[in-house]
Amino acid sequence: MSMDRLERQLRFILEIDKLKSVYRRTYLVDGTRRENSAEHSWHLALLAMILSEHANQPLDVAKVVKMVLIHDIVEVDAGDTYIYDDQGGKAERERLAADRLFGLLPIDQAREFRTLWDEFESGTTAEARFASALDRFIPQLHNYHTQGRSWKEHGITPERVLSRNVEIADGSAKLWEWTQIIIERAVAEGLFTKS
Amino acid sequence: MSMDRLERQLRFILEIDKLKSVYRRTYLVDGTRRENSAEHSWHLALLAMILSEHANQPLDVAKVVKMVLIHDIVEVDAGDTYIYDDQGGKAERERLAADRLFGLLPIDQAREFRTLWDEFESGTTAEARFASALDRFIPQLHNYHTQGRSWKEHGITPERVLSRNVEIADGSAKLWEWTQIIIERAVAEGLFTKS
Repeated sequence: MSMDRLERQLRFILEIDKLKSVYRRTYLVDGTRRENSAEHSWHLALLAMILSEHANQPLDVAKVVKMVLIHDIVEVDAGDTYIYDDQGGKAERERLAADRLFGLLPIDQAREFRTLWDEFESGTTAEARFASALDRFIPQLHNYHTQGRSWKEHGITPERVLSRNVEIADGSAKLWEWTQIIIERAVAEGLFTKS
Repeated sequence: MSMDRLERQLRFILEIDKLKSVYRRTYLVDGTRRENSAEHSWHLALLAMILSEHANQPLDVAKVVKMVLIHDIVEVDAGDTYIYDDQGGKAERERLAADRLFGLLPIDQAREFRTLWDEFESGTTAEARFASALDRFIPQLHNYHTQGRSWKEHGITPERVLSRNVEIADGSAKLWEWTQIIIERAVAEGLFTKS
């Protein structure tokens, strides 16, 4: 094995450190600051390990874990696109980012990572649907526990939360049920701005 | 399945969000701020996915990934202990933290997480030794790419780096070889404070 292969791997590892500086709209549960996409990915991997029993279908949990760990790496180039903003150009931006970033790896690993990311994006497998459900579920928890801070800042209504995140049900009926309970409680507690 | 089980799982998930506010001595590769233990754990999981071919022994990679994802959760209660500081009381602090934190989970998952963490701590398996090697390897990269910032701040000598991290060799001779190259380069480039 050549040092060249290890050097390529380390170049990728250094490059993705930038994901720790990509900030999302969601706040930490204690409200002290916005969350970045690297720590969010860590949190999602823990959700995958803990909540897989609530998936609609049997799963390869290790694959879901890997999928959520890499799903946001494209944001190093493409930035975070807020789910309630215009998604125009997002797919193309992220595709170019995937080309460049995964392309830093040795060719076999570049292919492996790209295949996993494409699967996540396509949502065609049970693992991809569950990974996406977790990704859409966790911000609802963060919002609820920060008195709806991010919802209020962006004028998001409960109707938009539910319509924009209904795909949670495709991955986990249980987590979708729980999402609806959270949103009901948030409405009752006045956590949404009156429109 | 009762909602009670899901509620226990979510309580743990909310509690470990605090790991995003536990800061290490190491800086991000771009030097803008210190790194927290949640994003560090994400980075390590990627290292596990990418570098497992350099381990001394064949590995269950998925297990290494899970191990590094949970290895620092105890820091939510116990805080981060700098590798070059007095380690007195660390083991006991972290054991109590593991009792409380993993104890938030349903009993079967509490046991599973605790067993995995105990294995990491004990260093008795190939997976634990490789996970620990990654955990000791990555700060050398961060230090090298930030002009030795954390080494300088704490007056760490190259000799201490090498003696305190020699266990990298138990997990990966290749990464230990690379660590020595990095330290040699760092010395040549004046990245350590003159003692």
